Amino acid sequence: MFNIALFGAGRIGQVHAVNITHHKETSLYSVVDPHQKSAELLVQKYQTKRQTIEQAMSDPKIDGVLIASATDTHADLIELAAKHHKKIFCEKPVHLDIERVRHCLETVKQYQVPLFVGFNRRYDPQFRRVKTLFDAGAIGKAESLLIISRDPSPPSAEYVKVSGGMFRDMTIHDFDMARFIIGEEPCSIYAQGSNLVDPAIGQAGDIDTAFIVMKFPSGAMATITNSRRSGYGYDQRIELHGEKGLLSAGNIKENSVELWENSGCLTAKPEHFFLQRYREAYIAEWDHFVDVMAGRATPECSGADGEQALYLADKALESLQLGKEIKL
Amino acid sequence: MFNIALFGAGRIGQVHAVNITHHKETSLYSVVDPHQKSAELLVQKYQTKRQTIEQAMSDPKIDGVLIASATDTHADLIELAAKHHKKIFCEKPVHLDIERVRHCLETVKQYQVPLFVGFNRRYDPQFRRVKTLFDAGAIGKAESLLIISRDPSPPSAEYVKVSGGMFRDMTIHDFDMARFIIGEEPCSIYAQGSNLVDPAIGQAGDIDTAFIVMKFPSGAMATITNSRRSGYGYDQRIELHGEKGLLSAGNIKENSVELWENSGCLTAKPEHFFLQRYREAYIAEWDHFVDVMAGRATPECSGADGEQALYLADKALESLQLGKEIKL
Amino acid sequence: MFNIALFGAGRIGQVHAVNITHHKETSLYSVVDPHQKSAELLVQKYQTKRQTIEQAMSDPKIDGVLIASATDTHADLIELAAKHHKKIFCEKPVHLDIERVRHCLETVKQYQVPLFVGFNRRYDPQFRRVKTLFDAGAIGKAESLLIISRDPSPPSAEYVKVSGGMFRDMTIHDFDMARFIIGEEPCSIYAQGSNLVDPAIGQAGDIDTAFIVMKFPSGAMATITNSRRSGYGYDQRIELHGEKGLLSAGNIKENSVELWENSGCLTAKPEHFFLQRYREAYIAEWDHFVDVMAGRATPECSGADGEQALYLADKALESLQLGKEIKL
Amino acid sequence: MFNIALFGAGRIGQVHAVNITHHKETSLYSVVDPHQKSAELLVQKYQTKRQTIEQAMSDPKIDGVLIASATDTHADLIELAAKHHKKIFCEKPVHLDIERVRHCLETVKQYQVPLFVGFNRRYDPQFRRVKTLFDAGAIGKAESLLIISRDPSPPSAEYVKVSGGMFRDMTIHDFDMARFIIGEEPCSIYAQGSNLVDPAIGQAGDIDTAFIVMKFPSGAMATITNSRRSGYGYDQRIELHGEKGLLSAGNIKENSVELWENSGCLTAKPEHFFLQRYREAYIAEWDHFVDVMAGRATPECSGADGEQALYLADKALESLQLGKEIKL
Repeated sequence: MFNIALFGAGRIGQVHAVNITHHKETSLYSVVDPHQKSAELLVQKYQTKRQTIEQAMSDPKIDGVLIASATDTHADLIELAAKHHKKIFCEKPVHLDIERVRHCLETVKQYQVPLFVGFNRRYDPQFRRVKTLFDAGAIGKAESLLIISRDPSPPSAEYVKVSGGMFRDMTIHDFDMARFIIGEEPCSIYAQGSNLVDPAIGQAGDIDTAFIVMKFPSGAMATITNSRRSGYGYDQRIELHGEKGLLSAGNIKENSVELWENSGCLTAKPEHFFLQRYREAYIAEWDHFVDVMAGRATPECSGADGEQALYLADKALESLQLGKEIKL
Repeated sequence: MFNIALFGAGRIGQVHAVNITHHKETSLYSVVDPHQKSAELLVQKYQTKRQTIEQAMSDPKIDGVLIASATDTHADLIELAAKHHKKIFCEKPVHLDIERVRHCLETVKQYQVPLFVGFNRRYDPQFRRVKTLFDAGAIGKAESLLIISRDPSPPSAEYVKVSGGMFRDMTIHDFDMARFIIGEEPCSIYAQGSNLVDPAIGQAGDIDTAFIVMKFPSGAMATITNSRRSGYGYDQRIELHGEKGLLSAGNIKENSVELWENSGCLTAKPEHFFLQRYREAYIAEWDHFVDVMAGRATPECSGADGEQALYLADKALESLQLGKEIKL
Repeated sequence: MFNIALFGAGRIGQVHAVNITHHKETSLYSVVDPHQKSAELLVQKYQTKRQTIEQAMSDPKIDGVLIASATDTHADLIELAAKHHKKIFCEKPVHLDIERVRHCLETVKQYQVPLFVGFNRRYDPQFRRVKTLFDAGAIGKAESLLIISRDPSPPSAEYVKVSGGMFRDMTIHDFDMARFIIGEEPCSIYAQGSNLVDPAIGQAGDIDTAFIVMKFPSGAMATITNSRRSGYGYDQRIELHGEKGLLSAGNIKENSVELWENSGCLTAKPEHFFLQRYREAYIAEWDHFVDVMAGRATPECSGADGEQALYLADKALESLQLGKEIKL
Repeated sequence: MFNIALFGAGRIGQVHAVNITHHKETSLYSVVDPHQKSAELLVQKYQTKRQTIEQAMSDPKIDGVLIASATDTHADLIELAAKHHKKIFCEKPVHLDIERVRHCLETVKQYQVPLFVGFNRRYDPQFRRVKTLFDAGAIGKAESLLIISRDPSPPSAEYVKVSGGMFRDMTIHDFDMARFIIGEEPCSIYAQGSNLVDPAIGQAGDIDTAFIVMKFPSGAMATITNSRRSGYGYDQRIELHGEKGLLSAGNIKENSVELWENSGCLTAKPEHFFLQRYREAYIAEWDHFVDVMAGRATPECSGADGEQALYLADKALESLQLGKEIKL
């Protein structure tokens, strides 16, 4: 049984808390969060205890840490955990500044602790199945990848201001997905964007609608279309076209009921947002991290993956600002 | 080029008129209908001529007749055409009285003319494909057949009174479909029915909602569910379950456009009624009849098929009235 | 926190064990099963204890019992639990003999304990949604109900011999579903059946393929089509046609990935069997039973429901044997 | 009745010949094609006559010309027809050289004859419905348009050499579709491409896989993904995301039959190629042109539309060659 300290008791920390608790090989040993109320809620619900950062890091009973705190604390906590030889699961991103990411990864390397970066979508059973069938040769060589990713509704302008911008905050998942599926590093990137959803986002210096095109050394290409709003739930789809055919992973609808009447056939929307759509993915990535802690696997999604996705986000922003394709 | 006399210039006659005209081997030679206005409309549209029954039957230039007139004229016209050695395409049913049907078929046999009875659904590309795949062994032996057939809206009580009742008028298509798909004659039949759609139909002594169960010598079973109303267009589906799997033919939607919004995903209804859904079937059955006229085929759907479907309708009615299964 | 004794540590008992454990208001207090190995597995997995029937029934710390043992033990255990004033959750059926069921329910009534009979499909979110939308008037009055229920593969002939036959073992769920959806008691029933899947089932005196037609006092009708085999997973669908339209609940596919290639578009099968398809239903029915134990609800699915479903199974068998419709 | 001279008796000319013949207001007066055999086939099939260019242009009985000949003859024939005051239907493109297009349109303007350029996809009922619903406000303002257009298999390298390249030959349809749907002229364009399908296409100096991003003055964006090969039929889809939701037009499958078996559910491919998928569109665009000839409409799709689509193709090529976004 691995004892886990959970850093961050917010929305995403709560998802992980239940998965840690339900897993037969892990135990929620403690919760660390400066916000007392959030921390206490989890402590009571799972009959565990609250610790400070220092207590948790220096507690020899703790095997692994799950970092789900505010983005700007990730790199510091990773380094601290590495120095205390804890195994590390960190929510994306490592940091919004790529130099800080690189420095942090150096520290992790120095202390030789495993670091898993939580790009949850790699563990979505649908996308994983596309990857598995593609790797098994179902459609031959990859030619075109279409990633469609639209949130149900936009975040507040306050959030946008500290988010690092749409590419580093939202598209970063899609950059990782493109690398995961194609299995190559892109050699060029182009980004176009607009502020269409909420003027406050534009006033905060960001866009809310984006189109990205990447090219890979094999000649394969990928496009990402993003929006901070869909009007019909969380739109998460990929299409991979290859030599011999197409693999597509569509949305999961909220239910399978159809209402047929005079105006047509009405069916359900896609599942609302990431907590619903990626519920199974969060369980599966925790399974993987337990395998990492147990020495049965190395992190499939490492610090280097986190760094590379951020690099692509930076380059997409550069393309948007310069109005031209960037060679990588 | 075969010259065709069309008997009946109503809704279904108009469908056949365009198919006769467009077919490269047939010509619409004349139109026969006591209703002057209907007849003249077709005569003008296709630049052809109007004839009386006697003129058409005795005209040596006419190779074939297409009987799409009122139901109670079918048997008389068939016999007359047989005596004049015309090749005969007759809309279902031959007659509502099975003794009259049998007598008529005797006459046809005596004069050795080909008679095709227009069970159009056998020529629907969807149902035909189910039959073809089943015959090719795609699902092994047949076990269960589900036929769902619902009209978009009920006929008038006036029509119901002369229709021969729901089983002889509407379900007759489904009896034929069951025989066509399974390829056996049923050995028992059970029918249940209700008057739910329009009280006037009940007052006319008929039902408007029916469930039928048939069993075949191989042990396979079929169920038919009928309604005179669907609320969402013409609902025409079959499912054939076999040893190894299921073949299903769903509805054809009016279009492929989806509207995704907050209330869900709205798609189109099935095509409205038989003129739309079976447009291709009417063309395909005419192709077949041309092959029959040219001696390249014998009628796939003969007078005997018309008789057998009517027999099943009669027995279904008997089951409904007696409240028990009828052995055939 | 309610302490629960689980009777039966087999396949279905294991499903309930995890739901009891995960529910925040219930605790798996003990496991009762004469088969030591099965019992011990659960005891270890959930760090609980094993009890005998007598120990569990007389243990004052136990609030409720979950009876998931062999069918022929259900009625005895229900009576024993009632006498000890335990709240009772019993897997269907109460017993295969309707007189025994009635006697058992008398006992339950006498001791005034709540009894919930586990017709899990009522808690399937899809079927529940159909019921909810229907009750809200989405399609007006009910006219036709189609229930399609096909298992992925047949049980052994040994199981069939003690199962009470297909109607009491398998169709009983569909009888309950028909009553649940329509909200009336049927007034007639007709059944037809065949032995097509496995000759051993026929030799054991049973059928494996069945069609049933029921009529309700309102004139609405229902049909059930059953098979012990589908060839493509667990086929669980309903269609409810009403005055104004159709509500349908389709299968849940194993995944949403599509493979488009030269032979067409290949998508996933329905989820394999009841453990997958009804996973959420088992959780939801446990939620409901917790509400019952807490006095927040009375059993939505009671002993009387269990009795009525068995009654319909008995009458269906009578219809099959006599070859006629049975008035109820 | 309008008499039509058809220039070009190849594959696309044959499609138009049947539509001209079936339309109640038009007659196929003559066929003009230097290739004797093709011309004679149509002449015999429709019992019409063959003419030379000069004969047809100077024949006062001819009201309109349909130009479906080789691409490099279009502009010359348009000018000749304009000078003879014929109404003109011309297959896309007017010419591959934009200066030649402009000169040709000047001539048309000078002679004041109507010119319709056959961007057939605007008349596809699916895409037309998306446009109609969008214009009616179904999804609010346009934000993102996704156009997916993939041919079933690549053309020969010989064809590629004279085609003007992928953008002018294939993508030109998608440029027109983007303008048609959004209703604005794009203000920037970016193109990326690869040679993945057939090395001979690359040796001929062209690409076979392309991704394009356009931005419009309103901030809306469009992406086009093209391939000369799909492996699963003709893939023709659009998605229009707006403020309030999504309108999508999917592929039309060859049939509605599903085969469910152990490997999953197999359904049909999209219709094979443009002759099948756009059969209704060709009929509808001819209807529109008849309205133009009759003075009931002006060309919805004019020479200026042809010029603008070619301009976008030229600019896309410039973007591809320079590796940067082009401002328009």
